[in-house]
Amino acid sequence: MTEVISQHRIRTMDTALRERARAVIPGGMYGHLSVNKLPAEYPQFYQRAEGAHVWDADGNEYVDFMCSFGPILLGYQHPKVEQAAAAQRALGDTMPGPGPVIVELAELLTGRVAHADWAIFAKNGTDATTVSLMVARAATGRPTVLAAAGAYHGAVPWFSPGRAGVTPQDHASFRYYQYNDIASVERAVEEGGDDVAAIIVSPFRHDAGFDQEMVHPEFARQLRALCDRIGAALVMDEVRAGFRVHDGGSWEPIGVAPDLSAWSKAIANGYPLAAVLGSARYAEAAARIFVTGSFWFQSVPMAASVATITALREEGAVPAMTRTGTLLREGIEREAAAAGVPVSQTGPVQLPNLSFPGDENHARALTFCAAAADHGVIVHPRHNWFISAAHSDSDVERALTAARAGLRAVRERFGPD
Amino acid sequence: MTEVISQHRIRTMDTALRERARAVIPGGMYGHLSVNKLPAEYPQFYQRAEGAHVWDADGNEYVDFMCSFGPILLGYQHPKVEQAAAAQRALGDTMPGPGPVIVELAELLTGRVAHADWAIFAKNGTDATTVSLMVARAATGRPTVLAAAGAYHGAVPWFSPGRAGVTPQDHASFRYYQYNDIASVERAVEEGGDDVAAIIVSPFRHDAGFDQEMVHPEFARQLRALCDRIGAALVMDEVRAGFRVHDGGSWEPIGVAPDLSAWSKAIANGYPLAAVLGSARYAEAAARIFVTGSFWFQSVPMAASVATITALREEGAVPAMTRTGTLLREGIEREAAAAGVPVSQTGPVQLPNLSFPGDENHARALTFCAAAADHGVIVHPRHNWFISAAHSDSDVERALTAARAGLRAVRERFGPD
Repeated sequence: MTEVISQHRIRTMDTALRERARAVIPGGMYGHLSVNKLPAEYPQFYQRAEGAHVWDADGNEYVDFMCSFGPILLGYQHPKVEQAAAAQRALGDTMPGPGPVIVELAELLTGRVAHADWAIFAKNGTDATTVSLMVARAATGRPTVLAAAGAYHGAVPWFSPGRAGVTPQDHASFRYYQYNDIASVERAVEEGGDDVAAIIVSPFRHDAGFDQEMVHPEFARQLRALCDRIGAALVMDEVRAGFRVHDGGSWEPIGVAPDLSAWSKAIANGYPLAAVLGSARYAEAAARIFVTGSFWFQSVPMAASVATITALREEGAVPAMTRTGTLLREGIEREAAAAGVPVSQTGPVQLPNLSFPGDENHARALTFCAAAADHGVIVHPRHNWFISAAHSDSDVERALTAARAGLRAVRERFGPD
Repeated sequence: MTEVISQHRIRTMDTALRERARAVIPGGMYGHLSVNKLPAEYPQFYQRAEGAHVWDADGNEYVDFMCSFGPILLGYQHPKVEQAAAAQRALGDTMPGPGPVIVELAELLTGRVAHADWAIFAKNGTDATTVSLMVARAATGRPTVLAAAGAYHGAVPWFSPGRAGVTPQDHASFRYYQYNDIASVERAVEEGGDDVAAIIVSPFRHDAGFDQEMVHPEFARQLRALCDRIGAALVMDEVRAGFRVHDGGSWEPIGVAPDLSAWSKAIANGYPLAAVLGSARYAEAAARIFVTGSFWFQSVPMAASVATITALREEGAVPAMTRTGTLLREGIEREAAAAGVPVSQTGPVQLPNLSFPGDENHARALTFCAAAADHGVIVHPRHNWFISAAHSDSDVERALTAARAGLRAVRERFGPD
């Protein structure tokens, strides 16, 4: 049995569970929550979560700055969300039809998100991006979709970041542009003549493993104008960022409206839900496609979503995340300067991304994050982190203590630059 | 406001909700739970579910013989399932990693399903079929999948039963055979030489809108031999039938093992969960593909699944469903003979399918089902029904009373044959 070593933490249960998992789960674990490529300081299994804190299978406690990779917006076990979910659960969840709450939620979302006139609900973020592209294709009668090179819009064959199990045909309808480079979009349009159904874009560039990049407002406006000119749908992938940077659509502050937007992760504070929102012009096409899923009509996640979106505004969650994210970013900046270790912090403060300039194979980031995990703070070396409204100033303090240890470890191993 | 008329039931709330839904949901409702193509006697919205019974938005009660199109195996709100889910929920659901329960569930499933050595969990049935085909393609390095013409393996572009929003490229890797016709499979194999990654098949033929057809054991054995000969994966789509006809894999009673199987619907009694099960030979390929989803690691549905699969055997759910389904089938046979209306009942009794010979556009089935709904029994005119272990003899009695009314209505409208 391989013993997982941690400086401060016992890992007996986690080690035993990993051993059992290797026998019945391919590679021991799969997907974005596998720690196979993370330092040994990360636990694989968690037993409990509350507020901004989580406990691994051995009962070790951590401040979680990943928020389960985004779904947790208000903190784990948020009382109002759990109460709404429990009240609905006592009546029914999966039923032979949707509950009244599907209407309430569609009304709430179309009221909150400026471009939205209608909603279709699903389970995975990938369901929402897939359905968005189907609506765009049905509306335009065209096949091609333009996406930013290196972007992530789902772990399905049509957009898989991996190659195993994916055929060239799966990507046949895609062409690629460079984020924030309108000339590259124009070139991608011209390559195929008038066959473009949709241009899909994230509210900012958040490709895993790279520094984040805010959208240039001019690029957003040019993209909108280009879609109007060629009659293609502008599809916004809000799955990762939605409701963290704004309590409506993420590009509303810059005044650019998409035609369709794909939402998931944070919209029900951890309950499984995704949504496609669209403008009236696309409603007819949306009614023509056939999409569905066994659990797409569950009432409990919808009740949780109504409570989450209501609390988002009532509790000032976006300003709270902005404030906490700013504290964290400024604190890390200070710690890095004091340690003499150059760092790069990019993207919105609510979705922090830390990297080390010239960090080959993320070696410095891995060292930093291993030390952080060992000091009871969960962050990620190759993916943006997530702030929730439940993170307190003392959680930020703990993160900064962990960051100090992480920066010291980086400096000891790699020198001051 | 369009008033929905029912002979016995008030529909004020349902009518008002439909009106509101039309403003914010394309077509008023989407997917398999839309009643747009069903008679006006069907409610669209449900407020409560318990055991085998459901209540619509106006509080009208029904015996539900659709089990939410399959997910409900033991009855709504099954105490042991709900207790297990509640105990897990008090700790955590969506967390920064899976809970120990993922290992417990993988061990339980690989112990129950004979061909299975490993498990990957997801949300939608379509996730499970998609991942199965990715594993088969990764293992074989080949692109092509053979599927039965008219079969349903998911409402995604690669297998959508609709055409809107789907491009020819989406289906480019598929070739089709006739269920139970091995010569047609051989022909489909020969068409493409040695490029077949997988043959996907349902445990029996359950294409919506058609009579069901049990698999010929000889066809199953020939399919297995053919896959072995050409080195392709035999992929079983258990999404609809899994754990209703057998408490292991559906073809275990006939002694034919697939390489990969896709599960969802009933495996967590209504909680959102899907699983891919595979044999050891495919574990390496399964570890190589990258698939994931924000909610794929939720612990609550996994805890519900452990409780469901445990209760399935402990409470003798398959024999109970078989007994109830037999009572219903024999009862309808008697009622139909007494009414002088020819009917066709096909498939396993636990997944009943009723049709009327020569019934153009399902006109007789629609008439029958409208009368049944009006008498408080939910069944479907174009899709198989689902028995759960919670259906009692008195529920069957109510179904037979409703069937009597339905058969009378068919006879009155269409004559005795």
